[in-house]
Amino acid sequence: MVTILDVARLAGVSKATVSRALNGKVFVREEVKARIMQAIAETGYRPNQLARNLANNKTNSVGLVITNGLYNGPFFSSMIYHAATNSELHSRQLVLADGKHSAQEERDAIDLLLSLRCEAIMIYPKYLSVDELDEIIERNPTPIVVINRELTRHRSQCVFVDHQQSCETMMDYLLSQGHTRIAFVAGSDASPTGERRLAGYRKALRNAGIEPDPQLLVRGSWSTDSGYEAGRELLARNVPFTCVLAGNDDMAIGVAKACYEAGLRLPQDVSLAGFDDSVIGKYYNPSLTTIHVPMEEMIRNAIERVLLPEAATICAHRGELVCRESVIAHKTAR
Amino acid sequence: MVTILDVARLAGVSKATVSRALNGKVFVREEVKARIMQAIAETGYRPNQLARNLANNKTNSVGLVITNGLYNGPFFSSMIYHAATNSELHSRQLVLADGKHSAQEERDAIDLLLSLRCEAIMIYPKYLSVDELDEIIERNPTPIVVINRELTRHRSQCVFVDHQQSCETMMDYLLSQGHTRIAFVAGSDASPTGERRLAGYRKALRNAGIEPDPQLLVRGSWSTDSGYEAGRELLARNVPFTCVLAGNDDMAIGVAKACYEAGLRLPQDVSLAGFDDSVIGKYYNPSLTTIHVPMEEMIRNAIERVLLPEAATICAHRGELVCRESVIAHKTAR
Repeated sequence: MVTILDVARLAGVSKATVSRALNGKVFVREEVKARIMQAIAETGYRPNQLARNLANNKTNSVGLVITNGLYNGPFFSSMIYHAATNSELHSRQLVLADGKHSAQEERDAIDLLLSLRCEAIMIYPKYLSVDELDEIIERNPTPIVVINRELTRHRSQCVFVDHQQSCETMMDYLLSQGHTRIAFVAGSDASPTGERRLAGYRKALRNAGIEPDPQLLVRGSWSTDSGYEAGRELLARNVPFTCVLAGNDDMAIGVAKACYEAGLRLPQDVSLAGFDDSVIGKYYNPSLTTIHVPMEEMIRNAIERVLLPEAATICAHRGELVCRESVIAHKTAR
Repeated sequence: MVTILDVARLAGVSKATVSRALNGKVFVREEVKARIMQAIAETGYRPNQLARNLANNKTNSVGLVITNGLYNGPFFSSMIYHAATNSELHSRQLVLADGKHSAQEERDAIDLLLSLRCEAIMIYPKYLSVDELDEIIERNPTPIVVINRELTRHRSQCVFVDHQQSCETMMDYLLSQGHTRIAFVAGSDASPTGERRLAGYRKALRNAGIEPDPQLLVRGSWSTDSGYEAGRELLARNVPFTCVLAGNDDMAIGVAKACYEAGLRLPQDVSLAGFDDSVIGKYYNPSLTTIHVPMEEMIRNAIERVLLPEAATICAHRGELVCRESVIAHKTAR
């Protein structure tokens, strides 16, 4: 392995001079600096960042923890994208670590990033509870921000969307279009996001004087495949409905496939809506009515919260109704 | 910040004993170990992984470099997913770093991961040339594998798909269905993947005795939005075609939207095909004919190449034709 000594020899200077040129704290003549840079290029020397981070106690990087079970979809790819580009805007490098399949592994991923001396950490938790997250924030001097959970003790260290309110907004719209038999494809039952949306579905129905029919509730697990299976299950029950609301756009697309296979036309025979405002919903035929989740603003806000806490604004974001072709007013019951 | 001394005090042992218990190299009584673990839990002490990595010269992690311009789509989210789950299968943690917008920044991201003592590095390059990649491999003792480029000097350090051959396979199928006026929506012109697919399109046409019509070629930049714009541009030229082949599924979905807006039905009026076999293509209506890119096998192979070089197999993967509803035999010209 090439060492700083090899660079010093080739440049004809001392090790200390190379070191001074690299850490930039002490004046080194331009001509000498140029020779050192040339020698670094020729030898392929790589300053030991690990040792430097240890010395400086920082890395100019921002860590993000997400469990790999969530990577595989447009929603999270969009989140990782915004996290990377917004880190870059703040002259930081995004480093993503995998939270895997348990609260302990989410802790391990946070610890890995902390031990790599990331300047700040963002976590989109799947397994850690609000209490555990609050505790992690208390124990660590490094700024940590939690995405998509409403913390109780450290409310300034989280950014989230009010999923229940968003779902009520969507339901009020569907009800206003004359739909009363609205089926709901819920997300995984362990997911707070899914449960809040389900609560919003039930609350909006009850507000409209309609008792939720358990026959109209099916469970998916966020993927398009699971939405397709949920759609088939719903159709097999043979109960009347005029509209399906899916817990996210991916599942809505799966439901659409199940409807087509059963000979139903969208939106003439069944209206359909989702959540997330994913790219595909905009391009789907018919284009998908959905709730826009302000992912980019949320991530920008999360990064500002940890890097520029004085500049950060609100922590609660609101979803916004996006009306497209897949929902029409109800005329005849199916 | 909690130090090892705090742990030692609380556990009633010496600093050296805590250190011995943590690095596991010397025998420490179970009862003492339990007391130390308890003290670690109570104090929230985190062993300095950075210092440890420096001492052990390893981190049990695998680095992946992809530029953030590529994160935002189902193809790359699927790649990151398979990279994480396959790293986990090998008891490693995936660490993703951002290659940003230039060859220099791709180098910087590789350097960051190397300096964090990742055990192995995978790179899906966008800007670095084959020569530069070969050189990086030569200079670094850490195993590096390049995804989606055919290296010339270090052929055992790359995994790739033969994109030209895959495109010829698709074109031969479209031609066999009676299509002769086939439009092509190419990817970004700086992309080797895009250029290989375009070369396959032209070669297959010429093999069939058809001179490629420049009026049937439009450029996109891989996103669904760009496919939509390319589709509109193609339709505005008002030249006859019976089939559109898009450089990936995302762009194909955009083309479909442009066709619907122009009052064309798929596949009755226009056949449509893409590449990648993305989830959405399977669920789109009509479902999309495409080339399956064996992403999971490719990533598994890439990880084996760097972690278990003796177990690794082929480096060239083949795309596979997936026939679905969006392509039908040509009957009448548009």
